[in-house]
Amino acid sequence: MTESKHHYDERSIEAVYRVIHERRDMRHFLPLPVQPAVLQRLLDAAHAAPSVGLSQPWRIVRITSAELRERIYDLVQQERQRTAEALDERGAEFLRLKVEGVKECGELLVVGVRDGGTREIFGRRTLPETDVASTACAIQNLWLAARAEGLGLGWVSLFDPQALADLLGFPRDVRPIAVLCLGHVEQFYAAPMLALERWREPRPLSELMCENHWPAELPGAAE
Amino acid sequence: MTESKHHYDERSIEAVYRVIHERRDMRHFLPLPVQPAVLQRLLDAAHAAPSVGLSQPWRIVRITSAELRERIYDLVQQERQRTAEALDERGAEFLRLKVEGVKECGELLVVGVRDGGTREIFGRRTLPETDVASTACAIQNLWLAARAEGLGLGWVSLFDPQALADLLGFPRDVRPIAVLCLGHVEQFYAAPMLALERWREPRPLSELMCENHWPAELPGAAE
Repeated sequence: MTESKHHYDERSIEAVYRVIHERRDMRHFLPLPVQPAVLQRLLDAAHAAPSVGLSQPWRIVRITSAELRERIYDLVQQERQRTAEALDERGAEFLRLKVEGVKECGELLVVGVRDGGTREIFGRRTLPETDVASTACAIQNLWLAARAEGLGLGWVSLFDPQALADLLGFPRDVRPIAVLCLGHVEQFYAAPMLALERWREPRPLSELMCENHWPAELPGAAE
Repeated sequence: MTESKHHYDERSIEAVYRVIHERRDMRHFLPLPVQPAVLQRLLDAAHAAPSVGLSQPWRIVRITSAELRERIYDLVQQERQRTAEALDERGAEFLRLKVEGVKECGELLVVGVRDGGTREIFGRRTLPETDVASTACAIQNLWLAARAEGLGLGWVSLFDPQALADLLGFPRDVRPIAVLCLGHVEQFYAAPMLALERWREPRPLSELMCENHWPAELPGAAE
């Protein structure tokens, strides 16, 4: 009775779950190019994302200039140092992690969010952050499609957004949210790299959900 | 040379692209239940999302109380009216659209974002909105898995987040970002509903991307 007539065949459903569970946030890349046809399919996948009020707030810059790539690398390194300082006692541990693949990856993309401001009202009058949410859905599409194509993707958010916006000449209402490292990898991590590196223990879903009312014993703020 | 050895087989790749392109933001539902095993798979898919610094900021509330569902419906209706007023000359047109399926859908989920505040530094020191981004990736996973299972999902963001947080007893650092209507549908829209309803004309990807520097002639702010 509850079986939907619209479901995909068993193998297709399996492929969808497989890609969802095998996608990884990659930091290690092989210095090999990405085929233009593959890149186009990935970008089209991103552009198929939902967006609040059909606003399509994502803006994508493909970095092909070696000089720009170098300057983006520098921005990431600067923020990496600042993050290490802010992390205090875990700073040294953080600096031992590989947190980006800007120089090695086959393709470097910067994704910006166009801020709907007070003009875009539909679905965001009380929730202006849905701009970011829509853009993240586009990135997740690209991420999943890349995994199916055998390519890794890493979302780097270690940068000063204003400095990066200035570097790329973004208009004032577009703010960068992601530096995406995309490319071939030697292998995909078996689990999230930060779990493998014991940076943090992932929490089970059961601790992050509940029925009807948030129970006092479930952690919100507390870790 | 650029072909990755990690790519999925052709049929699996096709399934991944198919679900990305056939996913729709649904507003029309059949009043049928969702099988518990299917719901669990969808929630596990959401929980497989990437998150900044492995922070897993998503918080999910499954609404099973009919009274709570009614009160969430009321909150959405209130914001629907306020949005219509704010939309001014397009307000009447907006009110003719079906923008939610809170009462009919088989499952109602509220998704919150746990704000990392100043405690979560990794990957969000300069970009605190990555909390929202990670949570949106989780929702996109759920959305795609649901489509493969033949179920529709609609992300409703028409509500006062504080009122909804109070209703569900969220801790102070958790803010609702989505009311998700999930369930069986008569049919999936052939294109985004807001395009079919001529609320807005979608823009091609070519207008939303560029190489290296954002060109002055590409619209950022301007429509």
